[in-house]
Amino acid sequence: MAVPEFMEYVEKHQNDFVERLRKAVAIPSVSGDPNHRPDVFRMSEFLVNELKALGASVETRDLGKQDFHGTPLDLPPVVLATVGNDPAKKTILVYGHYDVQPALKEDGWATDPFVLVEDDKQRLIGRGSSDDKGPVLGWINVVEAHKNLGLELPVNIKFCLEGMEESGSEGLDDLIYQEAGEYFKDVDAVTISDNYWLGTTKPCLTYGLRGVSYFHLTVKGPAADLHSGVFGGTIHEPMTDLFAVMSKLVQPDGKILVPGVYDQVRAVTDEEEATYATLDFKLDDLHGAVGNKTNIHPDVKSVLQHRWRYPSLSLHGVEGAFYNPGDKTVIPAKVTGKFSIRSVPDMEPKKLTELVKKYVNDEFNKLGSKNTMVIECSHDGNHWLASPNHPNYVAAAKATETVYKVKPDLTREGGSIPVTLSFQDALQKNVLLLPMGRGDDGAHSINEKLDRSNYIQGTKLLGVYLHEVSKVEF
Amino acid sequence: MAVPEFMEYVEKHQNDFVERLRKAVAIPSVSGDPNHRPDVFRMSEFLVNELKALGASVETRDLGKQDFHGTPLDLPPVVLATVGNDPAKKTILVYGHYDVQPALKEDGWATDPFVLVEDDKQRLIGRGSSDDKGPVLGWINVVEAHKNLGLELPVNIKFCLEGMEESGSEGLDDLIYQEAGEYFKDVDAVTISDNYWLGTTKPCLTYGLRGVSYFHLTVKGPAADLHSGVFGGTIHEPMTDLFAVMSKLVQPDGKILVPGVYDQVRAVTDEEEATYATLDFKLDDLHGAVGNKTNIHPDVKSVLQHRWRYPSLSLHGVEGAFYNPGDKTVIPAKVTGKFSIRSVPDMEPKKLTELVKKYVNDEFNKLGSKNTMVIECSHDGNHWLASPNHPNYVAAAKATETVYKVKPDLTREGGSIPVTLSFQDALQKNVLLLPMGRGDDGAHSINEKLDRSNYIQGTKLLGVYLHEVSKVEF
Repeated sequence: MAVPEFMEYVEKHQNDFVERLRKAVAIPSVSGDPNHRPDVFRMSEFLVNELKALGASVETRDLGKQDFHGTPLDLPPVVLATVGNDPAKKTILVYGHYDVQPALKEDGWATDPFVLVEDDKQRLIGRGSSDDKGPVLGWINVVEAHKNLGLELPVNIKFCLEGMEESGSEGLDDLIYQEAGEYFKDVDAVTISDNYWLGTTKPCLTYGLRGVSYFHLTVKGPAADLHSGVFGGTIHEPMTDLFAVMSKLVQPDGKILVPGVYDQVRAVTDEEEATYATLDFKLDDLHGAVGNKTNIHPDVKSVLQHRWRYPSLSLHGVEGAFYNPGDKTVIPAKVTGKFSIRSVPDMEPKKLTELVKKYVNDEFNKLGSKNTMVIECSHDGNHWLASPNHPNYVAAAKATETVYKVKPDLTREGGSIPVTLSFQDALQKNVLLLPMGRGDDGAHSINEKLDRSNYIQGTKLLGVYLHEVSKVEF
Repeated sequence: MAVPEFMEYVEKHQNDFVERLRKAVAIPSVSGDPNHRPDVFRMSEFLVNELKALGASVETRDLGKQDFHGTPLDLPPVVLATVGNDPAKKTILVYGHYDVQPALKEDGWATDPFVLVEDDKQRLIGRGSSDDKGPVLGWINVVEAHKNLGLELPVNIKFCLEGMEESGSEGLDDLIYQEAGEYFKDVDAVTISDNYWLGTTKPCLTYGLRGVSYFHLTVKGPAADLHSGVFGGTIHEPMTDLFAVMSKLVQPDGKILVPGVYDQVRAVTDEEEATYATLDFKLDDLHGAVGNKTNIHPDVKSVLQHRWRYPSLSLHGVEGAFYNPGDKTVIPAKVTGKFSIRSVPDMEPKKLTELVKKYVNDEFNKLGSKNTMVIECSHDGNHWLASPNHPNYVAAAKATETVYKVKPDLTREGGSIPVTLSFQDALQKNVLLLPMGRGDDGAHSINEKLDRSNYIQGTKLLGVYLHEVSKVEF
């Protein structure tokens, strides 16, 4: 009886929940802009007050200072809140963030980005509506509904809400590892609502992310930049060598040329194959996002497999060369090409770096250049893959069917959400990505929105999920 | 008798000439810095006064305004001065420039760049000492010597002195073409002292320059920059295509891969071959200039031939890609690769552009990419080659032997000096490059210098040359 009662409450009180979102959006908690840093702190206080009012036990963790281009800036705190501590119940860790991307009316917003507006399509428009204030408040709405209905929450909830997600999550990883055996010690599973449906009509559960390994390939020639009139044709030019090597990394059709990379890629199982059939995604969605039809693959399954479960290699740029408009007849003395590889199961970052280094060195040596070359991995983040058969996912799927009357799509993403991996590595628990918003919410763009139905149905989903997950065996 | 008398005068009055150079260097006529624009005007007035005091008829030509990043700036005038107008004499047009490169003590200068200092090696150190105030004053010293000796100048001199050479010679070409049949109409030959000896010990005459054709290769893909996590592996990336095509332009050993380019290169004659034997140049000079031994060719002749008389292709950079330090996982939407080809006789710029366009289009089409590519020539300047057997050169060689007791090297340069070609094209007269300074003067670097001996012997050379050229038959 608890679930229908809860769902009815959410339906009835939806305007109150929209008001809560309106208050949150009105606080311009832009973590990337030092002028808005006090607003980020204000936003943390808003959440602390909301949670305390609902009976949560709340503490804030000071993360120290950030070095903002030489100026020390106070980092916004992590809000840690506990609702319930019954040892007989499961404990679900809920992660979210209360900072937002920058937004200015002048960027092209139709309305003031920090005033929540509902349009005639019942879209709640405002910065942070979908990323990630809506989902964070969704969890709070769930707690409120249970409190006001006098219903016991079926699980203990531990909140971990950060204010620097849009600016590199500075300090968060340290806290996660420090608290793994302390604040987070009783956590049974982690649920994050900070991504999106694949399309616009069908909910999904997300169980995989690609990793990323970033490389710097530096070729050094003359001691200083030279004039191409005086020296062109007489010395080995670093740019020539750089282009020769970087052109050997990937084909125009996306095929990575570093030997051994594909050997590490896990084969597609029949089970995985089956998940693509039902996905809410069309080629038009890709064409719309790209702005034209420059896709490599002709069908949805191929596109999504190459986004989610095959590696890709992108050339990002060159440091040290001429980059302005106009003409400059320089021979750059030292150039650094930047590229990255999106990695997938079962690629290992260390092994990948070895393969890349060996290949790049071999290709450079073939050139017969007198310049010197160094290839370095500047950063690697592993891929992440959870089993969609884990009881945590099964519970979320059941909740989705209850609320949306449809089986959720099982999706992965091409990018990385580093906190996912941090929680999994530090806590060794299942992590579930349970999105609230749609694929067209425009999280980092102008006119960011969260459909009212996604907010309200999403609040129901989060609550019902807690009930379902309380019943499964981990 | 005139020549020995003149040479003796110069020798005796060398300290006065150094004083003249000291006054000129003290005016920081940096054309590239708007704050110094009044100094550039002051420098033009300095020259006007010097020339008028010697009896020249002087006029200044207003070139209008320059658009300096949106701000209109008055262009410094061209100083046109005439010394002598005897129809029975030849008329030699002397070009020089009175503006200088920027210079700040903080750049690493050992002394104040705008205070001429003579060190213990009798080097006159100061910005503009060698480029090009020393040579311009050399001509004025010649006029002064003749005036004070009561000697008639053997030729009429027409000066054309500009104040924007270090900033693109804005407005000069128009003036040259406008005055070709007017102010410049009686000119028999042009002499420019604005380059350098090949090495440090032996004077030279310079009879050739390479041209330059600059290309922009633009590949356009998605409508906007994309995230490599979400789109990597699913779309044709402009950077991949750009690197594929640009890597096909030139080999690491400098060989240009555009078919047909070498077919246009004039063969080496025995006469030219012989000129390399005597040149004052060692591989160490190249190693010193480059800062290491990354030269492609193992011997002096090869090095200089590839600098002077063979084409070269340099990759300069990429516009539109990531160029900052650090990591950014962007797929740039539109990237423009910049490269240029140094051209030599008998390459024709139009034909070269055709060859490049055809080849680049062919190579792009081979990629099978859905992106679009455009290749454009943004600028072409032709090569220049004079005959070192022209009487103007013969006269200069004879003068060199008189002053330096050595046959001058016959040199070419790898870069372009556009005004050379403008004068030749507009006036259809022989142009001679007759340098005063040494190859190590550091014209655009810190601690620019002109050796006292080069300034004084150079002044003699310019004067004796006028006597010799008055005697030859054109």
